[in-house]
Amino acid sequence: MRTALALAARGLGNTWPNPAVGCVIVTRGSDAGRIVGRGWTQPGGRPHAERRALDQAGAVARGATAYVTLEPCAHHGHTPPCAEGLIAAGVARVVSALTDPDPRVGGRGHAMLRAAGIEVVEQVMAAEARALNAGFLKRVEQGLPFVTLKLASTLDGRIATHSGESRWITGPAARRAVHAMRLAHDAVLVGSGTARADDPDLTVRDMGAVRQPVRIVIDSRLSHALDSRLGRTAGQHPVWLVHTDAAPLAARQGWSATGARLIAVPSDGGHVDLRAAMQALAAEGLTRIFCEGGADLAAGLIRAGLVDELAQFSAGALIGAEGRAALGPLGCAALADAPRLTLLSATPVGADVLTRWSFPG
Amino acid sequence: MRTALALAARGLGNTWPNPAVGCVIVTRGSDAGRIVGRGWTQPGGRPHAERRALDQAGAVARGATAYVTLEPCAHHGHTPPCAEGLIAAGVARVVSALTDPDPRVGGRGHAMLRAAGIEVVEQVMAAEARALNAGFLKRVEQGLPFVTLKLASTLDGRIATHSGESRWITGPAARRAVHAMRLAHDAVLVGSGTARADDPDLTVRDMGAVRQPVRIVIDSRLSHALDSRLGRTAGQHPVWLVHTDAAPLAARQGWSATGARLIAVPSDGGHVDLRAAMQALAAEGLTRIFCEGGADLAAGLIRAGLVDELAQFSAGALIGAEGRAALGPLGCAALADAPRLTLLSATPVGADVLTRWSFPG
Repeated sequence: MRTALALAARGLGNTWPNPAVGCVIVTRGSDAGRIVGRGWTQPGGRPHAERRALDQAGAVARGATAYVTLEPCAHHGHTPPCAEGLIAAGVARVVSALTDPDPRVGGRGHAMLRAAGIEVVEQVMAAEARALNAGFLKRVEQGLPFVTLKLASTLDGRIATHSGESRWITGPAARRAVHAMRLAHDAVLVGSGTARADDPDLTVRDMGAVRQPVRIVIDSRLSHALDSRLGRTAGQHPVWLVHTDAAPLAARQGWSATGARLIAVPSDGGHVDLRAAMQALAAEGLTRIFCEGGADLAAGLIRAGLVDELAQFSAGALIGAEGRAALGPLGCAALADAPRLTLLSATPVGADVLTRWSFPG
Repeated sequence: MRTALALAARGLGNTWPNPAVGCVIVTRGSDAGRIVGRGWTQPGGRPHAERRALDQAGAVARGATAYVTLEPCAHHGHTPPCAEGLIAAGVARVVSALTDPDPRVGGRGHAMLRAAGIEVVEQVMAAEARALNAGFLKRVEQGLPFVTLKLASTLDGRIATHSGESRWITGPAARRAVHAMRLAHDAVLVGSGTARADDPDLTVRDMGAVRQPVRIVIDSRLSHALDSRLGRTAGQHPVWLVHTDAAPLAARQGWSATGARLIAVPSDGGHVDLRAAMQALAAEGLTRIFCEGGADLAAGLIRAGLVDELAQFSAGALIGAEGRAALGPLGCAALADAPRLTLLSATPVGADVLTRWSFPG
């Protein structure tokens, strides 16, 4: 199952709206313990992991054990159900980590296998599988994406000098790690202020990406310039703009012409209602979103309880109190109101340090 | 030598104005490799490490090798010189890590040993020994103490809410680690604002301390209250106040009566001239100072290039932009002006993370 989970992780960021699943087929009997098939969900969500592993195993799958990180699907979608595939291949035993919360599956995959006489063991390494599938599960269970917030700041929590100079706070190894993180998410998100200030293109470079994450700007008035990097490349890789009804018609038409997708959501005091925005993005199929700022969007997402994980890059530098803060106002009157995070890991990355933290709930 | 360095480290914070030295005596010949004496500089700086190790070894020291982390002293001070002690004990070989930069020694210890026919090997693990003796060396070579700055903040660099609530940002394990750090320094330093806001007593608690670090407040006008914790305990453990000539006579008299030591230094635009303050503290014998804030004193020390190491405790919490910053203004107009630090270590401490960084040169 550990191997299957590692295979599944390869699909993160590449399989939405489908889950990233891993499957390992292992022989039993006299030749027991040999891995004869490995599969993971392919880019775009198909073929499924089980199909890939079964194709690799061929006739040897007969009588074998299949380890799957998620219950095999039981419904006819674009592909025949994986449960049927496992039955047809003559697999004798299926070890599964999680029941699929998708209402089209929801235990029916396991039941179909058992009805065919296959031994099914459930909930093996379920906690690890839940963590890996956090995005898929949150989307199905709550209608929201899993959000990772990246902060990259000096040791005193600054992201730029007073005059806005910010290149570079962190070193090349940290910036490369950020690209790897983008790749493991379905989408990269920034606010309109960051889009205006940095004119980012938000693509993943030098990583052999087979599928670029969706590039999203929260931009209530659609004020981001059409001749920006995002505007010029919206025809090549997806750009989505989340706006309110305050966006002028001309901007809507201009951005639509670039190939960008426009997503209208309600406003909340003149700004995009962030919960509504996240619900809309989940409805579009996104399961994992990587937010790269700026300070006000980060604070807004935290205030609304929409952030699941923080990836904090700390650079060995100090800018001082005149510098620009990494995080906008949170409205904490008392210390008891401050969100408390749990440490996941602390790792040097080049000359910087990456600490990862999970938000409560 | 590694053992000798580990023994030497036990003395850090306890030996000023003397260096913290370690000594290990190892047999040679037919019974080679047996450790027969271990010593380290005792609290207050005497007895010296070599004396302790020789006393422990007794007659077995004859013909043995002595590993010393610093050149043995050659001058008659409060105690007879250690070089004489090693010669008298009949040690055959001395392996030393560093030449003592003290002008009263400066190679004469090694020369005295050689003149007595002892084989001397120098500069063994010299880099490690320089790091360990950084405080002693900086005081002798530059007339300044080694300064460790502690910052304990949220992940967004805040040390309190807008209203000043700061207990507690970090957890009990981090606070205990701070006490251990105080103990490894000769003195603990705060600014008058922190003294006023927190009324700290700055002692080391629950650690079996044999000698409390000197408690120092940078307080140009001697405005700290006489009935504060520091004022009430100045008779038990040392309290030093660094002030300018702006301090009123009544405050000087009042503080003198508590048993505190007053150190007058020049002013720099109405504040204590921090370089002059550090020079005065080094002249008083201090080699290692642990600065615990506040934000303005920390920034002042950094601006003046007086900080050697940063100990950053990062708590898994976020306060947001309204919170109080960990660091005051540094006057960095451009990012190139921002001090760049080198990572020494990154370690989880309870629920928090401690990263240690060294300042450039």
